[in-house]
Amino acid sequence: MKPIQVGLLGIGTVGGGVFSVLDRNQEEITRRAGRGIKIHTVADLDTKRAEELVKGRAKVVSDAKQVVNDPEIDVVVELIGGYGIAKELVLAAINNGKHVVTANKALLAVHGNEIFAAAQAKGVTVNFEAAVAGGIPIIKALREGLTANRIEWIAGIINGTTNFILSEMRDKGLDFDVVLKEAQRLGYAEADPTFDIEGVDAAHKATIMSAIAFGIPVQFDKAHVEGITKLSAIDIKYAEQLGYRIKLLGITKKTKDGIELRVHPTLIPTKRLIANVEGAMNAVQVMGDAVGTTLYYGKGAGAEPTASAVIADLVDVARLQTADPEHRVPHLAFQPGSMVNTTIMPMGEITTSYYLRLRVADVTGVLADITRILADNSISIDAMLQREAGDGENQTDLIMLTHETKEKNILAAIAKVEALKTVEGSVTKIRLENLS
Amino acid sequence: MKPIQVGLLGIGTVGGGVFSVLDRNQEEITRRAGRGIKIHTVADLDTKRAEELVKGRAKVVSDAKQVVNDPEIDVVVELIGGYGIAKELVLAAINNGKHVVTANKALLAVHGNEIFAAAQAKGVTVNFEAAVAGGIPIIKALREGLTANRIEWIAGIINGTTNFILSEMRDKGLDFDVVLKEAQRLGYAEADPTFDIEGVDAAHKATIMSAIAFGIPVQFDKAHVEGITKLSAIDIKYAEQLGYRIKLLGITKKTKDGIELRVHPTLIPTKRLIANVEGAMNAVQVMGDAVGTTLYYGKGAGAEPTASAVIADLVDVARLQTADPEHRVPHLAFQPGSMVNTTIMPMGEITTSYYLRLRVADVTGVLADITRILADNSISIDAMLQREAGDGENQTDLIMLTHETKEKNILAAIAKVEALKTVEGSVTKIRLENLS
Repeated sequence: MKPIQVGLLGIGTVGGGVFSVLDRNQEEITRRAGRGIKIHTVADLDTKRAEELVKGRAKVVSDAKQVVNDPEIDVVVELIGGYGIAKELVLAAINNGKHVVTANKALLAVHGNEIFAAAQAKGVTVNFEAAVAGGIPIIKALREGLTANRIEWIAGIINGTTNFILSEMRDKGLDFDVVLKEAQRLGYAEADPTFDIEGVDAAHKATIMSAIAFGIPVQFDKAHVEGITKLSAIDIKYAEQLGYRIKLLGITKKTKDGIELRVHPTLIPTKRLIANVEGAMNAVQVMGDAVGTTLYYGKGAGAEPTASAVIADLVDVARLQTADPEHRVPHLAFQPGSMVNTTIMPMGEITTSYYLRLRVADVTGVLADITRILADNSISIDAMLQREAGDGENQTDLIMLTHETKEKNILAAIAKVEALKTVEGSVTKIRLENLS
Repeated sequence: MKPIQVGLLGIGTVGGGVFSVLDRNQEEITRRAGRGIKIHTVADLDTKRAEELVKGRAKVVSDAKQVVNDPEIDVVVELIGGYGIAKELVLAAINNGKHVVTANKALLAVHGNEIFAAAQAKGVTVNFEAAVAGGIPIIKALREGLTANRIEWIAGIINGTTNFILSEMRDKGLDFDVVLKEAQRLGYAEADPTFDIEGVDAAHKATIMSAIAFGIPVQFDKAHVEGITKLSAIDIKYAEQLGYRIKLLGITKKTKDGIELRVHPTLIPTKRLIANVEGAMNAVQVMGDAVGTTLYYGKGAGAEPTASAVIADLVDVARLQTADPEHRVPHLAFQPGSMVNTTIMPMGEITTSYYLRLRVADVTGVLADITRILADNSISIDAMLQREAGDGENQTDLIMLTHETKEKNILAAIAKVEALKTVEGSVTKIRLENLS
């Protein structure tokens, strides 16, 4: 099947990410989608920079209108942002019968009703997974994963800039202004950070989630929007003493009197998982009447995390037109003809770290013998804990954490260690994963 | 459009959940799916109990074959479990051209290749969101949300029974056998807990995720399966001292030498979010090359959480046949004709708890004045923190956490509190959500 032809409007940070991820993972994406996804044309005012990124692999134009009017293009990816020209281009693309993928939360929170109605009328889709919480597939979860539920509320850390600032304020006890400057220096906050720190960006995203959760039109003008600029370090400290963390939450809740839609700094009990979401990470907690609480966590911004969401939307569009309609999504994610039979490795060949606990005699030289055996088997030690032998005890527990090694090395080493006269009984081995 | 007709095989815990959630949320589900979802027939050996649950709202039969052969039925939901009769029924349903929804991880991990091939050949789908991590839409995330990525690894707490036991062992310093008995008493572990505690259930789920992540056939026989029965309380304690928690993880990882597929107790750094998943909750962490790390958290078992996943699969099937193919999933989750315009409430009407910080004179009677004003405005206090006045200070910080109240009550109370002579400056107000 011919690749789906994509017109990319804007090749800044996210656009560059979309281009490079599609390029890098094309083979695997095609196996999933059933057809290739090809960037046909890139429109960007800075054509020179665009050409440098694209290196001849796509057409580059400066006029985005050329893209939305090009009959060869099936899908337009809008990454320009804002309400102005972006709206015009999205509507023109829809009008020309093209599917649209956009990461533009501002546009959808303010003009979504008009855009979705136009798309519905023309029989095209507007996909926007990247508009909320970046790479986290939260739109899909709400729209498809939780359809059995009456959603009761959603609370999300949906702005990485403010979460980074709040984490820093708490960790270092610094005031807002100081941390903001640091965030700007590190690239976590923009030169003009107003939309982030005043809560507007989070409110755009909360507005979109509110519509999806409750089946209401998007209505950003009704959202209560409050940022973190007035927050003092002292309140973060007092909250901590009382067992709470302060996060900027986007909240939408259904009550018997109507729907709440609000963004503001919020105390959350420290023991909740979402209270422990630190730095620039995002997380959305959803309460459904059947499923109870679910939480979705990941990177909410950045070139490749956002590209991940944009491309997932493109795969959704591609899958609409592959195979029979009943198999829009293949059972095992990859098209049946595109499965591979990669070896599943025997356990001896896997690589991980290890926790080892030994009962050893409390005499000199024991540790030297053990570490020699480990070294001979290419195992290096990351951390060690030795309990002092209790009164009257002549043995003690020795605990070691190793760096990564093959399981067969550990098994060989353990056999030799257990043969030592100074080691009693068998060695307890538990695998360790850093998950970083 | 005529409701989609469902045949339910087995109305035990999960089947009962499916029946009652569909019944309770039918209106909202129909608005999302574009057509109703109707339980046409329930098959269960215990027809008496089934009749009591169903109360005449569906046909009840004892012979499941009647359901898979009934030409009126569009979709068969298999909730029998195991490899025996369940396999036979699923294949018969497929053969009769019916879609299948199943929560049966054992069946899919062992016979999935045969079942998916049969479904593909007959042009029907087999959906199985409930088979992994219960109510968490992790299959959808892997199969559709993360399609842009080369998945690098998945690590999941995907068995609630063992996670409950490990949490209790750690919290209470108790040994495995003691906690297992407690878990059985509380209903977190079955009378015969072998499949859970020996890691088999987790390995079934890891096997399914491995296939979806890497595009390989399901092959449970290649999985390394190790449970928690040999784990000592002492190792949990030592791990804690070294900054780690021990969790039973299902892990699958792609390396240059092949794929790792293994279930075993694993040390994880305590600072990772997934290390803080406690009790019977599940969580799956996925590493993709573009998106980085994402995590999905929720209830992995239970009647309604599992029903949530089963019904989401039914909505997916229903949506295949509603509207035009391009609008399989409505933009805003609900069908365009089924949107409502529920009021978004003004901020004064919202209900939440509050953190209040006041600067008060260090004299008697201050607190009485303030608490009187709060009580007059229907605000009750949940916790209070008063800093001792420093040497030479005649003022001090007073921090109060309130129970839930309307925002307008708080604003009225604050205005009166600020008018007190003993209160200096303005009151700092931050909202508080329990998110429980």
